[in-house]
Amino acid sequence: MNLEEKISKYGRNMSSSIIREILKYAADEDAISFGGGVPDPETFPRKELAEIAREIVLNEYHYTLQYSTTEGDPLLKRQIIKLLERMYGLTGLDEDNLVFTMGSQQALDLIGKIFLDDESYCVLDDPAYLGAINAFKQYLANFIVVPLQKDGMDLDFLEKKLKELADRGEIKKVKFIYVVSNFHNPAGVTTSLEKRKALVEVAEKYDLFIVEDDPYGALRYEGETIDPIFKIGGPERVVLLNTFSKVLSPGLRIGVVIGDKALIRKVVQAKQSADLCSPAITHRLAARYLERYDLLEQLKPTIELYRRKRKVMLEALEEYFSDIPGVEWVKAEGGLFIWLSLPKGFDTWEMFEYAKRKKIFYVPGRVFKVYDEPSPSMRLSFCLPPDEKIVEGVKRLREVVLAYGTEKSLI
Amino acid sequence: MNLEEKISKYGRNMSSSIIREILKYAADEDAISFGGGVPDPETFPRKELAEIAREIVLNEYHYTLQYSTTEGDPLLKRQIIKLLERMYGLTGLDEDNLVFTMGSQQALDLIGKIFLDDESYCVLDDPAYLGAINAFKQYLANFIVVPLQKDGMDLDFLEKKLKELADRGEIKKVKFIYVVSNFHNPAGVTTSLEKRKALVEVAEKYDLFIVEDDPYGALRYEGETIDPIFKIGGPERVVLLNTFSKVLSPGLRIGVVIGDKALIRKVVQAKQSADLCSPAITHRLAARYLERYDLLEQLKPTIELYRRKRKVMLEALEEYFSDIPGVEWVKAEGGLFIWLSLPKGFDTWEMFEYAKRKKIFYVPGRVFKVYDEPSPSMRLSFCLPPDEKIVEGVKRLREVVLAYGTEKSLI
Repeated sequence: MNLEEKISKYGRNMSSSIIREILKYAADEDAISFGGGVPDPETFPRKELAEIAREIVLNEYHYTLQYSTTEGDPLLKRQIIKLLERMYGLTGLDEDNLVFTMGSQQALDLIGKIFLDDESYCVLDDPAYLGAINAFKQYLANFIVVPLQKDGMDLDFLEKKLKELADRGEIKKVKFIYVVSNFHNPAGVTTSLEKRKALVEVAEKYDLFIVEDDPYGALRYEGETIDPIFKIGGPERVVLLNTFSKVLSPGLRIGVVIGDKALIRKVVQAKQSADLCSPAITHRLAARYLERYDLLEQLKPTIELYRRKRKVMLEALEEYFSDIPGVEWVKAEGGLFIWLSLPKGFDTWEMFEYAKRKKIFYVPGRVFKVYDEPSPSMRLSFCLPPDEKIVEGVKRLREVVLAYGTEKSLI
Repeated sequence: MNLEEKISKYGRNMSSSIIREILKYAADEDAISFGGGVPDPETFPRKELAEIAREIVLNEYHYTLQYSTTEGDPLLKRQIIKLLERMYGLTGLDEDNLVFTMGSQQALDLIGKIFLDDESYCVLDDPAYLGAINAFKQYLANFIVVPLQKDGMDLDFLEKKLKELADRGEIKKVKFIYVVSNFHNPAGVTTSLEKRKALVEVAEKYDLFIVEDDPYGALRYEGETIDPIFKIGGPERVVLLNTFSKVLSPGLRIGVVIGDKALIRKVVQAKQSADLCSPAITHRLAARYLERYDLLEQLKPTIELYRRKRKVMLEALEEYFSDIPGVEWVKAEGGLFIWLSLPKGFDTWEMFEYAKRKKIFYVPGRVFKVYDEPSPSMRLSFCLPPDEKIVEGVKRLREVVLAYGTEKSLI
């Protein structure tokens, strides 16, 4: 049977994760990888989680080993509502404002399915989070791609595009603006309070929805916490995505959608067809952990660890790249990534062949382009390699840049 | 903001699970429910799973608490390959023939997305599994609905429909035939070996794919195991869906797709956009359990339990329904359900109001119709209520049928 002939319109729009392909090379023992966005497993509270896992399977098996509800564990909902109040001063949320998803990726998939089809538009930034691009592309959506600046999306550019669509009578086709508000993946930038407010105004003016994705918000290494767009615009206008992947354990695959009750009901419907329910064992594990331990306190050593590694990488970049004209990097105030941009003409995708030879791995910026295009930038993750490997890696990266740049007469 | 205005074509095709709504009523203490298809939690090996859960979180945290691969745990794949060989004599499978999903529901969702769009057809039976109807409808597919007979789908009917499409030059739009081969949900029937072979012939003749869903195969209470359609037609023609939900624990949410390597790669792609990966903790828990314990041996008391409950229900039906002309039921050889059909004119959906008063709950046949239509049938699950409640429940059901039938002058 010819499989390709049978594939649907959606199936033809799926592609394999390029990051996965890239990371295969990083398995080599001598390799240094700035590629993956995965947390350091030593930061996971394994002893506490192991004991709780035993207890909840033994004593709460009626719940943990059985089918559960599509919405997910009510005990965990209560814990998250408390956490959001502590972190962001969010109030007024109850259980019906929340639904759990299989990591944030499922939230992106379900929101894509609920809102987007071949006649709709959504707004993405450039560069954009790869998982969002992949999720939304499946549903044949059209994109308004807006350049990302140091304080968030270029709102003048966005308004110009929206006005064009409004003038053509097509503004109703635009469904939502997708934003990673804190420590953007891949670009590291944080949307400023002013831009958050202005973004809500644009959304109100054109009656658009905002999807705010905030996986890294708790991992701030400097500066002050900024109000979520969700708090500024309210649940009628903004839906907030959160996850335990970066602050407790990605293996639990717990994402959460926080929003207006009518929207949450729709996400529940979509999740029902997608997987009926998530494993109750993972929800209850997180719920009992949050009941017994103070997550934000527990997170402090993790924040210290990443703050140090980030500093090591920023200092190494200063040492090895400040003498190369046209090289820039974003000093992300939190999260896991530094976005390094090389001078015009560099193509970090093509340069990857050079990096392979030096056994230093990064994620080429091309991966984060909504449409497949060359990029002079790359995403560097500092969270996994030990300090000395970070320095050695940046040194190797300099050699790669110099070798490629010289050969291509770019520097 | 008007949410409804923003909903996509797919979102407009989503509906809430009616079974969930129905089961709300069953929470009453005096109620007897034949509604849910959930296993008895006392059959879950909680002590063994609790100990393993502790061990794998403590000692294998690098794997269990971290992001894992989209395909899922290779150790669990090996165990399933062995299990399929023991159960069905399936050989020649390797890791690349398998991908894990979030229960079988995710497999249905991803297969729907990969194959179906508004220009395609798929073949479903009447009645059909609700989860499949919901998953496939989202993608705007068209359906060929084929009556289910006592030994499986009505193949003459199917061939007639396929011929019509072939004559119109539209046969390429037909993507697959979906079959629950053993102890059908809801209808309880098992597709005979002859029909399995004939089904493969039809699929070959018209170059169609077969999606064989087999969640209940290990729960056989009488008769001989029949070769899966997958074994007869081979992975080029058939994809097999399996799950641990009915034989180990539904809470783990482990489904598995077994098929041709090219198709499995496509499912992996689709799963990547849907949720990146499943929780490694659930996979490893099942893998270590299967390494240490013989699942098929462990399952024997569960099979004994359900065999007895099924007998109790069949005897009660004999006692309370054999005197009502036109009432029929399927003596399912395994699985969790008995399909009870009332005389023509009965509408078990409408009759549900009568059932509520008597506090006896079932799932009306209408739920399993591809298009919303009245049905004189209902699905009865015997796996949860204790023996005496099964008898009492069937007695109440008789009263409901007599009351409704008399009032509507149907008996």
